[in-house]
Amino acid sequence: MVFRVKGVAIDIDGTLTFKDRSLNCKAVEALRKLRNRIPVVLATGNISCYARTTAKLIGVSDIVICENGGVVRFEYDGDDIVLGDVVECLKAAEYLKNFFEVELLDAEYRKSEVCLRRRFGLEEGREALRKGGFDGVKLIDSGFAYHIVDARVSKGRALEYISSELGLNAKDFAAIGDSENDIDLLDAAGIGIAVANADLRLKERADVVVSKKNGEGVIEALEFLGLI
Amino acid sequence: MVFRVKGVAIDIDGTLTFKDRSLNCKAVEALRKLRNRIPVVLATGNISCYARTTAKLIGVSDIVICENGGVVRFEYDGDDIVLGDVVECLKAAEYLKNFFEVELLDAEYRKSEVCLRRRFGLEEGREALRKGGFDGVKLIDSGFAYHIVDARVSKGRALEYISSELGLNAKDFAAIGDSENDIDLLDAAGIGIAVANADLRLKERADVVVSKKNGEGVIEALEFLGLI
Repeated sequence: MVFRVKGVAIDIDGTLTFKDRSLNCKAVEALRKLRNRIPVVLATGNISCYARTTAKLIGVSDIVICENGGVVRFEYDGDDIVLGDVVECLKAAEYLKNFFEVELLDAEYRKSEVCLRRRFGLEEGREALRKGGFDGVKLIDSGFAYHIVDARVSKGRALEYISSELGLNAKDFAAIGDSENDIDLLDAAGIGIAVANADLRLKERADVVVSKKNGEGVIEALEFLGLI
Repeated sequence: MVFRVKGVAIDIDGTLTFKDRSLNCKAVEALRKLRNRIPVVLATGNISCYARTTAKLIGVSDIVICENGGVVRFEYDGDDIVLGDVVECLKAAEYLKNFFEVELLDAEYRKSEVCLRRRFGLEEGREALRKGGFDGVKLIDSGFAYHIVDARVSKGRALEYISSELGLNAKDFAAIGDSENDIDLLDAAGIGIAVANADLRLKERADVVVSKKNGEGVIEALEFLGLI
C-alpha cells in the first residue's frame, strides 16, 4: 500500500468492544503493538471521563475525542478542551420534550452536547428539530444513544484539531469505526475502515469494510494497514 | 478449602492493572469466567465515572466501590450513592496548604473525598492533620495519590453496605488488593488476598499473599479460591 499511516483514530463502543460494551482483549493487545510507534486517538460519543479511563486501561495513548468531537483531551491529568456549545443543545432537548419522551443521560458530565436515551425515531427527531428551527444542532445516533450536538463539531473536525496540534494532517490517519457518528471521522482521515457490524450508512462511506465484527474487525483492519 | 466464596471484591489500579495502569488482559479474561456466577465488586480510590467505565469495559458487573468507599454504585446508568462527607475533607485540604504543596486531582468529579498528588510525606501529612484537630478525616495512600477521606467511610464499610443490599454478608466475599487503602477491604471480607506487589502494610494484614504481581497475582488468587 502506498498510503503510509502515521496515526490511528478509533471508535470505542461497538468497535473495540463487544455488543455488551466489554473490551475485546485481543484487539486491545493488537493496539498495544502500536504504542510508542504512532499516535492512537480514541474517538467516542461518550464523556471525557469515560474516554480518558478507557485510554488509560488500554494503555496506548491518552489522546481522546469525546462527546462526538465536542471535547478533546491530550493528557490523562490534563484539561478538557471544549469545542462545542452545550447551551443550544440543551434548548433543543427541551424543545423535543414537546413531542417525545426525552431522557437525558450523563447530563452532569456532558460539556458540549446532550445525550438522550433512544426512545423515539431518529428521523422523526430530526424532522422536529428542523421544524423548530434548530439549525445550529444536529441529532446523531451512536448506536447506543442519541446525541444532540453542536452542528459545527464532529469527530472528524476534532481529529483535524488534534492532528494539527501533533504536527500532522488528519489525512495521515487511518480511522476505524462502526456507527453513523463515525462517518465524518472516516471522511476526515486518509483511509476510513468500517468493521463488519457497522451501520450501513458508515459502510457506504468507508474506503474499506473488513469481514469481521467489532474487535476482530479492528485486528483485521490493523493487519490490512500493515501496522501489525 | 472450607470457605465458600459467594462474591469477589477487587481493587483496580495496581491489582488488575500493570504499573502503567493498563489492564492485564489475562486477568480480565479470568474475571469474566465469574460472570453470571457470583457478584464481582470493583473497589477503587478513583472516581465513580472511572469505576463504572472500568466495570463496563471488563464486563463482569456494574457494582462498584469508588472514592475509597465514599461512593458506591449498583448500575451503570444508576445513581451514585454518596456515603462520605466531602466538606470536612475540603477543609482539611485547605489546612494542609499551610504546610505543603497541595495539588487537587479530579476535584470536579469527587463527591465524598479530596484527592491530592503525592507531593509530601504521608506521615508528615497525617501529623499535620492530627495537630490541626481534623479527627473527622483520614489521609490514605492509594499508591497513585493521597486521599483525604471521611473517617467514617472505607472500602470495607462500603463492601458491607453492598453485601447487605445483595442479601449477603461481607464475610461471604473474598477481597483482592495491593495498597494500604485495601486493608479494611481485606479485613471486612471473609478472606483477604494481597498480590505480590502489594504494600507491606497490606501484606501484613492479608490472609494470603500470592507469589505473582498485579494481574498475574489476581489469576493466582482466583485459582487459589477455586473459582477458575
